[in-house]
Amino acid sequence: MSTRLRFSYSDLHQTIADGVKKIITSDFQFDVILAIGGGGFIPARILRTYIEKPLIAISLARYHPDEPPSEVPHKIQWVEGVNNMITGKRVLLVDEVDDERTTLAFAIGELLAENPAELGVFVMHNKIKVKKAEFPDAVKHVFVGKDIEDVWVDYPWDARDIIQHELDAAKGGILEVDEAEAKAAYRN
Amino acid sequence: MSTRLRFSYSDLHQTIADGVKKIITSDFQFDVILAIGGGGFIPARILRTYIEKPLIAISLARYHPDEPPSEVPHKIQWVEGVNNMITGKRVLLVDEVDDERTTLAFAIGELLAENPAELGVFVMHNKIKVKKAEFPDAVKHVFVGKDIEDVWVDYPWDARDIIQHELDAAKGGILEVDEAEAKAAYRN
Repeated sequence: MSTRLRFSYSDLHQTIADGVKKIITSDFQFDVILAIGGGGFIPARILRTYIEKPLIAISLARYHPDEPPSEVPHKIQWVEGVNNMITGKRVLLVDEVDDERTTLAFAIGELLAENPAELGVFVMHNKIKVKKAEFPDAVKHVFVGKDIEDVWVDYPWDARDIIQHELDAAKGGILEVDEAEAKAAYRN
Repeated sequence: MSTRLRFSYSDLHQTIADGVKKIITSDFQFDVILAIGGGGFIPARILRTYIEKPLIAISLARYHPDEPPSEVPHKIQWVEGVNNMITGKRVLLVDEVDDERTTLAFAIGELLAENPAELGVFVMHNKIKVKKAEFPDAVKHVFVGKDIEDVWVDYPWDARDIIQHELDAAKGGILEVDEAEAKAAYRN
C-alpha cells in the first residue's frame, strides 16, 4: 500500500492565490513569469491571473524518450529566442513542487548563467524533507504556496479519471491505495 | 447584463479526455505537443496525461504590454531552440478555444513556414460561429473537445475567486451577470 495526497483543482488554484499574496506583500517584483514544463505550466498560468506579466516556458524532463534515464534533467525546450526576457530582467520561475529539488536546482543553475537581474522562485507545494541542493545566494526570494508532508502527491492534471480524483480530494484527499492501481490511474 | 458560460476544472479535464478519444481513433499520430500560451498551457498539460509526448510551448498575445493593440498577435515566445522538434516532425498544436480563429490561424501560418511533416490542431472548445479564417489545406486534422455556443466563457484558471467559480459551474454554468462585475471577477 502507498499513501497518496490528492488535491482538487480548486484547492490548488486557492493555494496559488495564497502564494501570490506572499509575493505581493514582499519587495520582489518581476518582469516575466517563466514556467518549468511540464509541471509548472498549470500553476504558472493560474498565477498569471493574479499578476499580469508575460508568460513564457522552458521544458525539462528527467527522462528523455530517446536517452537512458539520467539524474541530470534534459532540456526539452530552453531559452533560445526569449533570452531578452531573461538577461537583465527580473524573472519569476514557477514549478508545481519542490521535492528533492533536483529539477529546480538544475533550472536555477542554468538560468543564472543567462544573467537575469533577479531570479525569484515560486513553488505551489514544498515537501518538508531533506533537499539535494540549497538555493544559491543569488536567489533571494522563494515563495511557497503551501508546505506539505513528504508523501506522494497525485495532481488532478495527472488523473486519468478526473471525476474519481475530485471525489477522493473532496473526501479529505489522503488515501492508502494499492500502488499498482494508483500508478495505472495517474500519469506519474 | 451579459451571458457567461462557466465550466469547472473537472468539466474541462473531461472535455479534453473526450477529445483525446477522437485523436486516438483517428489516423493522426504526432511526435510533440505544442501549447499556444497562455490559453493552451492548461489544456496541453492535461492532454499529455493521456498521450505521453514531449510538451513544448509558444506564447502569443493579442496585446503586448509595450505596444499598441493589434489585430495580428505578437510572438512573446516562438520556436527558436525547438525547431528540430517541429521541422520534419508531426506536431499537435493545442489551444483552449477556437473563437474567431485569429490567434490559431496566425500560429498555424507561422508554424507551416517551419515545415513540419504534419500539423494537427486540438482545441478544447470550438465556438459555433463565423470564423475569420479557414484552416489551410495542409492542416488535415482538427480535433475539438466540445462545440459550444457563441457566448463569453469564463475559464476557471481566469477566476480570481475559484470557490465562487466552481459553485457557479456546479449550478449549471450558464449565468446572466453584470458585465462590470464579471470583468472584475476574471482576468479576461
